[in-house]
Amino acid sequence: MSTPSAGAPFEAVRLQRRALRDDDVLIDIAWAGICHSDIHTVRDEWGPAHYPMTPGHEIAGTVAAVGAAVTRYTVGDRVGVGCLVDACHECEQCKNGDEQFCERGAVGTYNAKDYHGEITQGGYAQQVVVSESMVVRVPDAIELDVAAPLLCAGITTYVPLKRWGAGPGRRVAVVGVGGLGHMAVKIAAAMGAEVTTISRSDAKAQDAKDLGASTHIATKDEGALRAAKGSFDLIINTVSADLDMKDYVRLLRPQGALVNVGLPPGDLVVAPGSLIVGNKAIAGSNIGGIPDTQEMLDFCAEHGIAATVEHVDATDTTAVDQAYERVVAGDVRYRAVIDTSTIRPA
Amino acid sequence: MSTPSAGAPFEAVRLQRRALRDDDVLIDIAWAGICHSDIHTVRDEWGPAHYPMTPGHEIAGTVAAVGAAVTRYTVGDRVGVGCLVDACHECEQCKNGDEQFCERGAVGTYNAKDYHGEITQGGYAQQVVVSESMVVRVPDAIELDVAAPLLCAGITTYVPLKRWGAGPGRRVAVVGVGGLGHMAVKIAAAMGAEVTTISRSDAKAQDAKDLGASTHIATKDEGALRAAKGSFDLIINTVSADLDMKDYVRLLRPQGALVNVGLPPGDLVVAPGSLIVGNKAIAGSNIGGIPDTQEMLDFCAEHGIAATVEHVDATDTTAVDQAYERVVAGDVRYRAVIDTSTIRPA
Repeated sequence: MSTPSAGAPFEAVRLQRRALRDDDVLIDIAWAGICHSDIHTVRDEWGPAHYPMTPGHEIAGTVAAVGAAVTRYTVGDRVGVGCLVDACHECEQCKNGDEQFCERGAVGTYNAKDYHGEITQGGYAQQVVVSESMVVRVPDAIELDVAAPLLCAGITTYVPLKRWGAGPGRRVAVVGVGGLGHMAVKIAAAMGAEVTTISRSDAKAQDAKDLGASTHIATKDEGALRAAKGSFDLIINTVSADLDMKDYVRLLRPQGALVNVGLPPGDLVVAPGSLIVGNKAIAGSNIGGIPDTQEMLDFCAEHGIAATVEHVDATDTTAVDQAYERVVAGDVRYRAVIDTSTIRPA
Repeated sequence: MSTPSAGAPFEAVRLQRRALRDDDVLIDIAWAGICHSDIHTVRDEWGPAHYPMTPGHEIAGTVAAVGAAVTRYTVGDRVGVGCLVDACHECEQCKNGDEQFCERGAVGTYNAKDYHGEITQGGYAQQVVVSESMVVRVPDAIELDVAAPLLCAGITTYVPLKRWGAGPGRRVAVVGVGGLGHMAVKIAAAMGAEVTTISRSDAKAQDAKDLGASTHIATKDEGALRAAKGSFDLIINTVSADLDMKDYVRLLRPQGALVNVGLPPGDLVVAPGSLIVGNKAIAGSNIGGIPDTQEMLDFCAEHGIAATVEHVDATDTTAVDQAYERVVAGDVRYRAVIDTSTIRPA
């Protein structure tokens, strides 16, 4: 399915995927997660948009065919594809396993021009063709519907939690309890950290505890944030609205870090002394490379975690338009995934 | 010597040090470095100032007497004292060796109220009494005059270089080639990093290379900073004037960090996307604890490095006032140290 222009409703269409190259895998998509960034892109809020556009970069399915040179996958394998479908594989970043920072420029799963000059089309579809180098294996322990959101929401939160040392004895706060936030809570708790969630209200306080948080802070309660001063070793901010970073840097313990994974429109403003006293850092983190994505899936399987999802039946494409509205309103608990078998091309 | 009020010239005075407590060491000071923060404090630019004030937190000398319970030092030992003269030694931060973040509040070497209610007086003097817990050993390989500035300028740059991974194969930029900057260059080079210096002009370009830098960038040359985009794994910013952080974050490679050790008056402003793309961080770092200070001195001895200094003869106290003017003007190459034996109390 695709959208013909910015803000237009989705339409069921017949997508033409490329013929398999030697290193390609043809995937029968089972589920595709709806990421907030799909909505920004489809609505042309994030710069050059190419229509018709099929979004979707949280893809889980099974291998239906493989190219002649494919070695890692065979027909029937359970696999996933995330935000990237190509990279140069030769630069220092690729060699480090950080394909997302490929010096040639990694190719996004949709709305990107690939190395052959074609515009990529994403996962709200029944099939996709991807180079095996960008495909990961979904462990048997994870059902495909709850695996799909791991390919973006999972990896986006796993990487900073790992890099900045979430683990036993460490206190982690997760700001925002949505698609990204709910995964951050589950993963941080599975890593052994003590997790606090922070959001505007108490509406998701019980959910947060069910996800693995020990404490919830509602910022609308006057003084609640101030009372948590100096409490956290790591804060993962998943909110893409502007927050006052000064309020959050204040919550860090010495050597602590505040890592932004959402993309707010405004600048981040902090006082230099607030970073210097306590050796604190404010950082960003952007998805993750293929090795980290595989590691994250294996970690989730080992710890019995995955996304919490709502299924979207796309027989009527307006169900996806409606799901978008619910994502924007913050109503989805916690990731909407499209049952791609229900898409009925005209 | 002390200054009787904000901005007044120094006067040679007789300082009364406390009688030795059981855990105290009496130090005959040989040299005291002049740190830019001495100037801010003496001039009452950094909040509550107590006069008369004897500044100085870069102290090197020899042990002249020890209290009954002192175990680590004996008379004649070559020792140093940095920015701190007491801490609780019981909190988590102290136990981690980060006395500078002591939860009770570490006691500054001068212009601070100690745990007994006395205002501390610093190192521009012939003697000082300090608990042995806050004293470090100066290795024989380092002369006392060039050791003194290591106690602040050395440790302030050593800690972020170590924490953020300066070493072989890593490209480090040092912004500002002054007291802190020249030590950052020497230490980073000794750690094996490839070092670039960045300052306004080329005036110190040759010096920078002599200190260990391979490249110098003059920011007044149009386009010079832009040309260095994506070049550095780590940037240590030693400048305490406001710089546009966006210009410097742009210089980072993926996973890179920009660490501020100077304290500019204005806020730090960065675009969230500039941190997210490349997993970058902007951080601060504040001196270091006693274990790191000892480690830094041992590292400097092992690598044959120390501060580059100019001697200040304080027989006439106006020489210190004049040295202050030269520090503010950025003329000192690279640390002025007072020969405390020349101080002649009235």
